[in-house]
Amino acid sequence: MEKTIAVLPGDGIGPEVTRAAVKVLKLIARRYQHEFNFSYGLIGGAAIDALDSPFPKETADACGTADAVLLGAVGGPKWDNNPSELRPEKGLLAIRKHFGLFANLRPVKAVPALLSASPLKEEKAAGVDLMIVRELTGGLYFGEKARTADDAYDTLVYSREEISRIVEQAFELARVRRGKVTSVDKANVLESSRLWREVVEEKKAAYPDVTVEHQLVDSCAMKLITDPSAFDVVVTENMFGDILSDEASVITGSLGMLPSASIRTDGFGLYEPVHGSGPDIAGKGIANPAAAILSAAMMLRYSFGMETEAAAIEEAVQTVLEDGCRTADLAEAGGRSLTTEEWTDKVIEQLDAEAVSEDIMFS
Amino acid sequence: MEKTIAVLPGDGIGPEVTRAAVKVLKLIARRYQHEFNFSYGLIGGAAIDALDSPFPKETADACGTADAVLLGAVGGPKWDNNPSELRPEKGLLAIRKHFGLFANLRPVKAVPALLSASPLKEEKAAGVDLMIVRELTGGLYFGEKARTADDAYDTLVYSREEISRIVEQAFELARVRRGKVTSVDKANVLESSRLWREVVEEKKAAYPDVTVEHQLVDSCAMKLITDPSAFDVVVTENMFGDILSDEASVITGSLGMLPSASIRTDGFGLYEPVHGSGPDIAGKGIANPAAAILSAAMMLRYSFGMETEAAAIEEAVQTVLEDGCRTADLAEAGGRSLTTEEWTDKVIEQLDAEAVSEDIMFS
Ligand SMILES: CC(C)[C@H](C(=O)O)[C@@H](O)C(=O)O
Ligand SMILES: CC(C)[C@H](C(=O)O)[C@@H](O)C(=O)O
Repeated sequence: MEKTIAVLPGDGIGPEVTRAAVKVLKLIARRYQHEFNFSYGLIGGAAIDALDSPFPKETADACGTADAVLLGAVGGPKWDNNPSELRPEKGLLAIRKHFGLFANLRPVKAVPALLSASPLKEEKAAGVDLMIVRELTGGLYFGEKARTADDAYDTLVYSREEISRIVEQAFELARVRRGKVTSVDKANVLESSRLWREVVEEKKAAYPDVTVEHQLVDSCAMKLITDPSAFDVVVTENMFGDILSDEASVITGSLGMLPSASIRTDGFGLYEPVHGSGPDIAGKGIANPAAAILSAAMMLRYSFGMETEAAAIEEAVQTVLEDGCRTADLAEAGGRSLTTEEWTDKVIEQLDAEAVSEDIMFS
Repeated sequence: MEKTIAVLPGDGIGPEVTRAAVKVLKLIARRYQHEFNFSYGLIGGAAIDALDSPFPKETADACGTADAVLLGAVGGPKWDNNPSELRPEKGLLAIRKHFGLFANLRPVKAVPALLSASPLKEEKAAGVDLMIVRELTGGLYFGEKARTADDAYDTLVYSREEISRIVEQAFELARVRRGKVTSVDKANVLESSRLWREVVEEKKAAYPDVTVEHQLVDSCAMKLITDPSAFDVVVTENMFGDILSDEASVITGSLGMLPSASIRTDGFGLYEPVHGSGPDIAGKGIANPAAAILSAAMMLRYSFGMETEAAAIEEAVQTVLEDGCRTADLAEAGGRSLTTEEWTDKVIEQLDAEAVSEDIMFS
């Protein structure tokens, strides 16, 4: 297949980790006879510096002609005191809205080799394998806002249509996972949550193979800590999803490993590591590229339908970690740590090794 | 001092644990020469059953003539399918709003004897001693709501005045604790959060002895797990506070122990355990009364200014736990567990012992 990928390295360690992911994607293209064309664009602080906008028209155009977008990270102290419209993270909000990327998928899966880094007791964290499906273009984020001298307003608004499409997304994902959806709301307080719950109840008839439960957001925030392995797919509105997905991201101790996808229904999507721009380690070549590489794997799966290729990357990352290869963030006391490039090359070697063993098996 | 305490036992284990707390309060009155008068009222499911309202006028009147309110818990499967206006938890929302109880204080402190029950690694949970100060009568909870066939709205609105009084409360509390306030908002997205941050910045000049930091709600949800002992006082708006205080309540493994206070500036307040109504164990006499007893201690401190008496209760609870006395929820495998009444009597014995040793010291 031929695909065009827009790469938006962004700020801090963004360029380093996207470079690693691109290297892996190039290998995949070679091994599996695809043609990936890469175009590059600016976003976040880098775009503010060069073009006075966190999401410039040039970038929107480059992404618009691509099949998917790979993003590094945005933000850094340099822009922290900028006025609100010239903040790097405005670039993220803008690109989501511009392309209607309403579904944010955030998988969290325990990596056995990394459990000692979990803040939770290892037996609690061990079985975690969940996916948060966060609505990304509605709710408080994009509702009407106003400010007077003495008051400030935000509006939490959802339409049946907006809820339907994200809930369907969650059901579809549950179907190819463990068949369970936890819908999170605050139906005992919010009108928007009562509509949310109504829509989930309506939709569920079409998915008899999926179990559905409703959970209040406060109770979900507890259960993510006390019983995280009870969750399969968690679906929720934008602001609850922001909070719960970040909470979930730290339970297994592998935040530096977590990818994300922001998609719509036609296959176009934006893929980015969950970790931030790491300004303190930027430019040193020591950042952990795993989350960016795994984000590239999600791109292969969700935007290009290349399940085999995606799984190959995920397996290679897993094996490399099990072999004890670590970047500085994950190195055990006294253990040697690899640079971003060295670690990426381990993954590439591993992918090559996997491919060779497949060649042998199927030849 | 003479004080009137309105007791609202509520549903499930509510009556059992409030009875325990009242017993302790009666002992305190005797030992410290106070006169506590108790009046009783219905709330939640019990009030719906008897008076067709989760917060009947009779109850409002009884509380209105009291100096403070002690509440058990509300809710249970019996009322789960009631229409929204006849749900037990509406009673909670109504009593908060009726009395203007804008400040919800939720302390979370690690109990060394209980750390093995924490989902976190013990060394993470060990140093936790934080207080969440949640705004309780504004925001999404009480903003305008609307519903059409296809849309639903909630409004997140805050006035400068509403923010000021809760932020002041947090600063005052920090002053008598470790001198640090973490103000939590989502200022990169919400207009109401930008006003919130502005007010915090204005107020801080009056508290040069207090350190202030701003944290985004998503980042706070992570840090409560990865570094919970970094927090002293956390202040935030109603919905964020609902989520974060429940999240914080499970990190030390002692949810069954946690008290809460909902207060205003004149000393009147509502005190209740954080745990729910425990319908599965209700009526068996085995509920853990510690949270209700510690809520009574908060009442002595915040509504009656009886710091010595409050500290005596807290110390007695601590000692009883260290001595290995446990209700069923906390009993170790194979360990004997005490009934609600037996455990309460241990606390009372301990209070008596403390008092005797004081008598000896000061006589
Ligand atoms: C940067 C910020 C606006 C953004 C959000 O809240 O959506 C971020 O926290 C995220 O989750 O991607
Ligand atoms: C029962 C519910 C309305 C309530 C709230 O959300 O405030 C509860 O969760 C709490 O925190 O006291």
